[in-house]
Amino acid sequence: MIFSMNKKFNTMTPSGFPEFTPAEEKVRQEWISVISGTFSKYGFQPITTPLVEREENLLGKGGNPKEIYALKRVMDDDGDTSHSGNTLRFDHTVPLALYVARHQNELSFPFKRYAIGPVFRGERAQKGRFRQFDQCDIDVVGMENLSVQNDAMMPAIIIEIFQQLLPKNDFIVRINNRKIFSQLATETVGVPAILAAVDDLEKIGAEKVSEALMAAGLNKDEAKNVLEFVAITGTNDEILAGLEKIEGKPEFLEGVDELKMVTQSLRDMGVEEKCFKIDLTIARGLDYYTGTVYETNLIGYERLGSICSGGRYEDLASVFTKKKMPGVGISIGLTRLLSQMFDANIVEIGKSSHLDVLFIPADEVATGKCMELAQNLRNSGKKVDVYLEKKKLAKKFDYADKIGVEYVVVIGENELNDGVVQIKNMVTGEKENVKNSKVLGYFS
Amino acid sequence: MIFSMNKKFNTMTPSGFPEFTPAEEKVRQEWISVISGTFSKYGFQPITTPLVEREENLLGKGGNPKEIYALKRVMDDDGDTSHSGNTLRFDHTVPLALYVARHQNELSFPFKRYAIGPVFRGERAQKGRFRQFDQCDIDVVGMENLSVQNDAMMPAIIIEIFQQLLPKNDFIVRINNRKIFSQLATETVGVPAILAAVDDLEKIGAEKVSEALMAAGLNKDEAKNVLEFVAITGTNDEILAGLEKIEGKPEFLEGVDELKMVTQSLRDMGVEEKCFKIDLTIARGLDYYTGTVYETNLIGYERLGSICSGGRYEDLASVFTKKKMPGVGISIGLTRLLSQMFDANIVEIGKSSHLDVLFIPADEVATGKCMELAQNLRNSGKKVDVYLEKKKLAKKFDYADKIGVEYVVVIGENELNDGVVQIKNMVTGEKENVKNSKVLGYFS
Repeated sequence: MIFSMNKKFNTMTPSGFPEFTPAEEKVRQEWISVISGTFSKYGFQPITTPLVEREENLLGKGGNPKEIYALKRVMDDDGDTSHSGNTLRFDHTVPLALYVARHQNELSFPFKRYAIGPVFRGERAQKGRFRQFDQCDIDVVGMENLSVQNDAMMPAIIIEIFQQLLPKNDFIVRINNRKIFSQLATETVGVPAILAAVDDLEKIGAEKVSEALMAAGLNKDEAKNVLEFVAITGTNDEILAGLEKIEGKPEFLEGVDELKMVTQSLRDMGVEEKCFKIDLTIARGLDYYTGTVYETNLIGYERLGSICSGGRYEDLASVFTKKKMPGVGISIGLTRLLSQMFDANIVEIGKSSHLDVLFIPADEVATGKCMELAQNLRNSGKKVDVYLEKKKLAKKFDYADKIGVEYVVVIGENELNDGVVQIKNMVTGEKENVKNSKVLGYFS
Repeated sequence: MIFSMNKKFNTMTPSGFPEFTPAEEKVRQEWISVISGTFSKYGFQPITTPLVEREENLLGKGGNPKEIYALKRVMDDDGDTSHSGNTLRFDHTVPLALYVARHQNELSFPFKRYAIGPVFRGERAQKGRFRQFDQCDIDVVGMENLSVQNDAMMPAIIIEIFQQLLPKNDFIVRINNRKIFSQLATETVGVPAILAAVDDLEKIGAEKVSEALMAAGLNKDEAKNVLEFVAITGTNDEILAGLEKIEGKPEFLEGVDELKMVTQSLRDMGVEEKCFKIDLTIARGLDYYTGTVYETNLIGYERLGSICSGGRYEDLASVFTKKKMPGVGISIGLTRLLSQMFDANIVEIGKSSHLDVLFIPADEVATGKCMELAQNLRNSGKKVDVYLEKKKLAKKFDYADKIGVEYVVVIGENELNDGVVQIKNMVTGEKENVKNSKVLGYFS
């Protein structure tokens, strides 16, 4: 299929499929490096599953058929149906469930894996909503059982990651346990309705919330209980003490115990107390999570919503295997987070160059010497390039300016004859002649 | 859409969408780290374009509509047509062409980028052919011009990469220049026909090749020329000297000059002569490449074909922009190469663990101390985990065995009281009691 040159091509990226600038991409790579490095330090290993999964598996784990992309060849004319039913993953959780289901006999449990890579959702394209975006997930998956101390690893890891990525900004990991909500729900009024009512507490005050709760179906005492419950605030110890005063149902007591153990384990690990906080109003994804839940907020930028969330679930792979596999995990929506950060100028986009040193041959005859010395520097681990195009010297320096490299090494015919190079610091403008044999030492 | 538990799910990966084992995946990650690190040292910066491009752009650059996957939502019922025309990239070259076309005014040329990631081709699934596979590409793209010394960077980089990845195996980068073939072609007999005939030279001998060439349409003298030409073998210098004896057409002479300059630049950079070789029979992708071309073979495993190939092209983005952008690039087909390597046992799949140290609390009361000391070790950069499940001690050690960790640190009630830990080397079986305060030093 040949198109004529006259056809106008739209070279922009398709709607919903974002692309970062080179400077932004550099930040993205640095973040991925910090995130994967920290995941590794905590004993998680990288698993890369295909981007494509069987349609029935994605739908079987609750995927939305209006958002899942199926693959179809542009021209399908040879009766080969082996491509149908291939769909793009919409998260890392279903691929993990499939992975542990098919490898359950080879894996060691608890199995700790991380996954960093793109997922796809065929949503309507709009600002901040992408059709392809990177997620960074960790999960610990147990076989039959999984101790609650694993739940403490998640905030510890989140905190270590964001302390590295956002040293200038405060953030807080908010922790709750879904089991304690069992105390509040009644046969007719579920947890979501209660949370919806208390969500506006700060704005509208206790009385109005009480009215809303009764409108939802609670009686006066029940509404009072809810208000007493969410009035439990303060330090982590104060909240735990407040919860312990409540004569609760067994599930509630279990939730309080788990919250206490998670807090204790975080302290055992020496995690800074100011970085995590028990918050009884957190209740994400109630249909999926069954115990500890997490949200993370950037202080001063709460409007960004939670920048890293997750929780404990009862059974990862239930539709794919009869084995019960409880787990706990978190996910960082990297693309969305970074694009918000860039928009809000929270993350500094470094001016730093992709190069440490640029060699410029001032005369063509010096090209070989430039390539030789550049290679020596590369062998010492530096990022080095040689400007090889035939341009005027001023143009070559324009290039150096534009790529933001700090050091330029110039060799012309004179330098070549004298066995020296001229090193220019592009920031200070200082120039210095250095012997060929001393160039390696100069940059080490 | 809810499926009942009775439905049988096929949890295998879809045909053509490969998945590595955790041990293989570890090798893949190490390879990507070496490849990207080497690309960076030579001044290439990572660019991540979307996996999805507009259908007309992929087809406009010669994509095969029978192999390109288009995206279609599983259930498309709301009249939203913004998803149509979205297709998965089949290589990194068309996305690069689009990238430089849309960013031509922001980029500095020569623009050097690397891309590592999956591409998709809807081929028939068969052994060694994948529908999703990773490619690792570098390209230098010039604006209007690009000096031939850039062509020398490609073999230098390939050689540095494979010296790191395959220290036990010899390989050779074979280099040719497409321009020198102009000497052999006639008005009626093109280069491909000639190459097809000489391809069997070693097997069938010169006489039979001569016959084949004449059958293809060459006269006797022309056939003799071809045989003289391919008889030029020997060291790189011998081949260059042989080529210089030929009174060639201008394009031929240009090709010889370029080969000489590439060879000279490789020597300037100190690249080992045994790693690259001029080979006049290399002529890959004649419709696309216009100058220097490369293939890379693993000695003793020539049956694997070229493990890294590429070349010089005249104009990268011709259909997308009027600017002429010559370039030179190489591509490593990582997934295919690794899967061949694993099959042929060329690459050792490390038994090394994803962990440096595993802490095992022998009694539950020691869990906190384990978490504390583990965290200290993590802070020093080690990969550390704590076994947190309630199992018998023997089961905990089974887990340590299975994950292949070298060091296990055990703390029970006695150790806790004495302020010591027991460190077991799982390879030698040696055990040693170490004071808590000395654990960090022990592993540093």
